[in-house]
Amino acid sequence: MSVGQTLAEKILSHKVGRPVRAGELVVVEVDQVMVVDSIAGSFFKRLEYLEATPRYPERVSIVIDHVAPAANLEVAKAQKEIREWGKRHGIRVFDVGRGVCHQVLIEEGLAQPGWVVVGSDSHSTTYGAVGAFGTGMGATDIALAAASGRTWLRVPESVKVVFRGRLPKGVTAKDAALEMVRLLTAEGATYMAVEIHLLDGAEALTRGERMTLANLTVEAGAKAGLVVPSGEILEMYRVPDWLYPDPDARYAKEVEIDLSALTPRVSVPFYVDNVHEVAQVKGKRVDQVFIGTCTNGRIEDLRAAAEVLKGRKVAPWVRLLVVPASSQVLEEAARDGTLLTLLEAGATIGTPGCGPCMGRHMGVLAPGEVCVSTSNRNFRGRMGAPDAEIYLASPRVAAASAVAGYLTTPEELEEEEVHA
Amino acid sequence: MSVGQTLAEKILSHKVGRPVRAGELVVVEVDQVMVVDSIAGSFFKRLEYLEATPRYPERVSIVIDHVAPAANLEVAKAQKEIREWGKRHGIRVFDVGRGVCHQVLIEEGLAQPGWVVVGSDSHSTTYGAVGAFGTGMGATDIALAAASGRTWLRVPESVKVVFRGRLPKGVTAKDAALEMVRLLTAEGATYMAVEIHLLDGAEALTRGERMTLANLTVEAGAKAGLVVPSGEILEMYRVPDWLYPDPDARYAKEVEIDLSALTPRVSVPFYVDNVHEVAQVKGKRVDQVFIGTCTNGRIEDLRAAAEVLKGRKVAPWVRLLVVPASSQVLEEAARDGTLLTLLEAGATIGTPGCGPCMGRHMGVLAPGEVCVSTSNRNFRGRMGAPDAEIYLASPRVAAASAVAGYLTTPEELEEEEVHA
Repeated sequence: MSVGQTLAEKILSHKVGRPVRAGELVVVEVDQVMVVDSIAGSFFKRLEYLEATPRYPERVSIVIDHVAPAANLEVAKAQKEIREWGKRHGIRVFDVGRGVCHQVLIEEGLAQPGWVVVGSDSHSTTYGAVGAFGTGMGATDIALAAASGRTWLRVPESVKVVFRGRLPKGVTAKDAALEMVRLLTAEGATYMAVEIHLLDGAEALTRGERMTLANLTVEAGAKAGLVVPSGEILEMYRVPDWLYPDPDARYAKEVEIDLSALTPRVSVPFYVDNVHEVAQVKGKRVDQVFIGTCTNGRIEDLRAAAEVLKGRKVAPWVRLLVVPASSQVLEEAARDGTLLTLLEAGATIGTPGCGPCMGRHMGVLAPGEVCVSTSNRNFRGRMGAPDAEIYLASPRVAAASAVAGYLTTPEELEEEEVHA
Repeated sequence: MSVGQTLAEKILSHKVGRPVRAGELVVVEVDQVMVVDSIAGSFFKRLEYLEATPRYPERVSIVIDHVAPAANLEVAKAQKEIREWGKRHGIRVFDVGRGVCHQVLIEEGLAQPGWVVVGSDSHSTTYGAVGAFGTGMGATDIALAAASGRTWLRVPESVKVVFRGRLPKGVTAKDAALEMVRLLTAEGATYMAVEIHLLDGAEALTRGERMTLANLTVEAGAKAGLVVPSGEILEMYRVPDWLYPDPDARYAKEVEIDLSALTPRVSVPFYVDNVHEVAQVKGKRVDQVFIGTCTNGRIEDLRAAAEVLKGRKVAPWVRLLVVPASSQVLEEAARDGTLLTLLEAGATIGTPGCGPCMGRHMGVLAPGEVCVSTSNRNFRGRMGAPDAEIYLASPRVAAASAVAGYLTTPEELEEEEVHA
């Protein structure tokens, strides 16, 4: 009896050249190896130990994004090593200010439908937004992938997540992504492919919104997050005919989310899957608001924030830091007036890249501080002090909270302004 | 026999209430005490030791600029302490992203003609641009000034520096300032007031250009750098009648600089007074270019850089980092298209503040790297590695060098482009 294949099985079968099933160990060609600055040193050492160099230099990219510009001498030395190594081996290096790795690779066309992309960053699941099997790995696996041009994988089981309908006004893909993590739980998709189906209007989600969804799948433990190609992806990319799951594919689990019934969500520290309606934690006083990252630092995110901030001012006790996900995003924001709106409201700007997401510079949190962040992790100590609190939310909620000075939605903010 | 007074003697006499002379020890009222983030902790401790609080809270300002946003947990804690202390004592705090202390105080009107301003930053001489006696002091003196509302000073001797004529096209106040430091030498004005006279067309220098001149006087060892009020300063400020040196004042030294004969200058590591024509060191390969700081991070500086960068691209091996001196500068640059021009050329942007000027974050230099910087110091190790080289120049020269990838002027760059 033949059973259909999941999207993950389809991609890996295509790579192997025969039908493969969840559970099998396979070796596949890798289309792109992505290395970030903070792992690059270990990556170089592993290659040296292997006495190897990248087999296909054009399939390797290094992105200087985690601590850029260099925040100290050690980082400066590591960056210099990256530039020199890249030059020596003909490897492309995206330097300081180009942006967050995942955003940059997508912008540069270095993730394509049906590709296998391995990255030294856990949020490499993001490439699933365009139908690529993207997954994060440690320095050793990444070095082996670069050296051999291949990697080994256990073909993952899949979880099917169906998003149906259209998002109500004021509700975003981030809210949908957080709701997905809540339903799956932090370990609910461990080593699985989260296969995302957009139906009944949800096909309208943009590439950027799909990136937000695929990005967050790793917070449920996913090996990959694959959005079934549809909508603008079909216009932007050449999508192979075979790049669709079979209707009779087998899933370990199925989850359905009605977008039209969704409300703004927030992930409460210290776990990403601790997701609540914003209304439930409304009023939490905020010290810093951070809009950016591979999750929500795109032009549509900045525009969403600008829409809320237009004509308003950030609360005097709040630092609103906006870090565009890439130089292209920043340029577009400078071009279309978005940046000016943010600045007029009292935002400040940081160099495109990961910003303070990992607490390594550009807005580290002090003890007891509270941050509303559009990023993807709120673990203890993630952005600095162990007791600092990170609330994950959409750019709209982040912007509204910056104005109010406490956690709130734009709708609640407006209501209170009317009553004031 | 009566002898006239220098501008420094005039200001201090006015404060003391009787004519004072160079060499006298005096105690004067302080109009503004400026404290920067990196000194604030010591400042608080000294006040605590004195069991004192600021006598005139409205005369104290704290600026979070040296490492902002917080680059690590220690800095984050220090910033938090500043905010809490400021709130407790009713002291104004300019938070992350507002800008470099001197630029912010000038923008906020917290330095006025005839005032005495003491700051915990050596470039507090900058306030002399508007005819204020501005000087840098350590944490103890600053704490005493805040606690008592007064400070003691030895009335400085003065050096008279006369700038005559108009700057040729392509030559800037930074070139004039570097030439001044060359002529005075690094120790040539130690504990003196550098009294700057703008004559025969030089009165046209803007407030920003005067700030560049006054800023650099400390690099000749000056206690204060005082620009005799003229030009737009008379329109922007209420300048007291008495705020002029007497024609028969006595000077320790007199130097004259013909602006009309000036060429672009560069200060070669590792001493600020090691000033040469750009032509003499042309061709030095560059890794990083930094446009910003209290010396040259104003809107006119960004515009000058944009003029050079328009339609050009930064060399592939160069990182061009632009850090506006203040949020107002950034906002204006976003409004008038300057920022977009910079970004289109390949510049990246940093949060308004001191940026990498002191090598504490946001672009620390690796061993062997070369940086062209619009800042004011090129001492060994200033921006990171001890052997990294910093060449101080104007925003025009910095921008041209970013495009060429080696030290050059816009004029040389254009010539080579024509021949290419």
